[in-house]
Amino acid sequence: MAYGNNIITLDHGSGGRATYELLGKLLRTYLTDVPLLDSAILEPKAGKIAFSTDSFVVSPIFFPGGDIGSLAVHGTVNDLAMVGATPCYLSVAFILEEGFPLVDLERIVSSLAQAAKTAGVKITCGDTKVVPKGKGDKIYINTSGVGFVKEGLSLHPQNIALFDEILVSGPVGDHGLAVLSARENMGLAGLKSDSQPLNDLVGLLCEALGPQVHVLRDPTRGGLATTLNELALEASCEILLEESQIPVRGEVRAGADILGLDPLYLACEGRFIAFVAQGAGQRALEVIKSHPKGKEAALIGKVVSKGEARVILHTAYGGKRLLGMLSGEPLPRIC
Amino acid sequence: MAYGNNIITLDHGSGGRATYELLGKLLRTYLTDVPLLDSAILEPKAGKIAFSTDSFVVSPIFFPGGDIGSLAVHGTVNDLAMVGATPCYLSVAFILEEGFPLVDLERIVSSLAQAAKTAGVKITCGDTKVVPKGKGDKIYINTSGVGFVKEGLSLHPQNIALFDEILVSGPVGDHGLAVLSARENMGLAGLKSDSQPLNDLVGLLCEALGPQVHVLRDPTRGGLATTLNELALEASCEILLEESQIPVRGEVRAGADILGLDPLYLACEGRFIAFVAQGAGQRALEVIKSHPKGKEAALIGKVVSKGEARVILHTAYGGKRLLGMLSGEPLPRIC
Repeated sequence: MAYGNNIITLDHGSGGRATYELLGKLLRTYLTDVPLLDSAILEPKAGKIAFSTDSFVVSPIFFPGGDIGSLAVHGTVNDLAMVGATPCYLSVAFILEEGFPLVDLERIVSSLAQAAKTAGVKITCGDTKVVPKGKGDKIYINTSGVGFVKEGLSLHPQNIALFDEILVSGPVGDHGLAVLSARENMGLAGLKSDSQPLNDLVGLLCEALGPQVHVLRDPTRGGLATTLNELALEASCEILLEESQIPVRGEVRAGADILGLDPLYLACEGRFIAFVAQGAGQRALEVIKSHPKGKEAALIGKVVSKGEARVILHTAYGGKRLLGMLSGEPLPRIC
Repeated sequence: MAYGNNIITLDHGSGGRATYELLGKLLRTYLTDVPLLDSAILEPKAGKIAFSTDSFVVSPIFFPGGDIGSLAVHGTVNDLAMVGATPCYLSVAFILEEGFPLVDLERIVSSLAQAAKTAGVKITCGDTKVVPKGKGDKIYINTSGVGFVKEGLSLHPQNIALFDEILVSGPVGDHGLAVLSARENMGLAGLKSDSQPLNDLVGLLCEALGPQVHVLRDPTRGGLATTLNELALEASCEILLEESQIPVRGEVRAGADILGLDPLYLACEGRFIAFVAQGAGQRALEVIKSHPKGKEAALIGKVVSKGEARVILHTAYGGKRLLGMLSGEPLPRIC
């Protein structure tokens, strides 16, 4: 559709004719499964129901490798995949700032719809609000998701056992650094978000290893280091990581160095960490590497004791250091 | 808990220690069913699944009769109830503005948790983002909801038939005018939002009348007039309303008069419109009135023809006028 220089006005959020006509048309062009009703009626499927929500406030809204629309789909699809669910249905809710160009809205909605199609999920219900200029920032998107978990599958930090082996499905830090570089116009070369849906890769792993998969988690805000600290706390365990085994792309390492950032604290949006039973690590690695999204996966560490919660990094130089949670100096709005 | 003059900082949104500790503690004090995992695992129940989403950007965040927290629960609970579902599970996602006082956050989260308890729904998963000062407005809340619809029950505009009788469950316009008056410090007397959960009252009606209930809809943004126009469009029908039968509180009529507003276009957050089969109107009215939330319900009109979509108001003075959708002059941010 051709929106020229048209922008979002407060009238689009009134619930009246402008909401009904313009947004109804634009959104419905792409979100073809969203009914006019506020609630969708979904076919139940076998298994327990997984339910997840995430708001996306990333800045800038367009970045190398994605945009806020595709990210909003990947984020919630991956949250569902992390509990072993097959993601099926998404809701999408927009908070639009007065003055936001309709061409940008269309680009984002189109990207969001394409991402849902690629991930194999249906967008089933939605909502649109408009806030006055200066009370938002272009566009915020909430997605919530419903999926179904196979009977018998239970991924939970409480499953974490002594000598569990820890894998990461690919290089870390790409998303965080790509967004930061785009926001600050740093022009760092070769950066691209890793944002992608992981449900296919996770499905493959769970199918192959069954209950030997103990827990999965996607290292988003706070990165690999913070996510592992959360898991260490939740399972009261000590994790030993081999720094030399953690995959980080050269461009990410170089860019992070320039900015004085540690890639282990930079967000990913298309990677997961897996804890698998002792002895199952090599098999898990082979399964993950057999999929195009997991070609650069690696075994990066193990659980070395239970009781105390901490993450130790065995550095490339042979020393050991405590890897804490992200604290202070936040990198705001990377998702 | 005692938060003194503490405020939300960007660090609270980093995903690191500040997010984990402070928000984790504050939110978890009230939202006791939210797990540390991003996704909740829910017990499936009989019937089809209803799924709904709504973002709340109301200003002011505290108003007579409620606040953004309770409103966020009622809004989604009612959206689920309108398709005949029993609401069971909610997600809650906060977008907080840097500088927002933690005491206000606590007040809202506590109100939200209490509203969920009263409505009989569990808050099962959540998300918290922080945006820089000037990129939000204190707090925005998204809730999404999952409910279950009894086999055989199907409420849909396509059910609307010639001579269907139309009811409203109580006086209209209270919420919209109460919020507007609070925002603009108008000091109009006796105004109070009608925000409340309707799942109990709707359950009673559906139980009693079964398939004689054709469609339900809550007249939120755009009010009774806009909601009826939407239904007329969706069902291609002409609706005749009796103005003298539409309940409007004296305080709302007086306040709306002063502001030059029409109560029929003011939002409700605790009322519903029901279309029931010809001849079932009186029985529906008795059932609704038997419940404390429906004491002021009324039969307000009927479907007089199929084919053309329009809403006609038979005025108190005996004339007839076309009642259009809300257009122009929006009342932004009443939900």
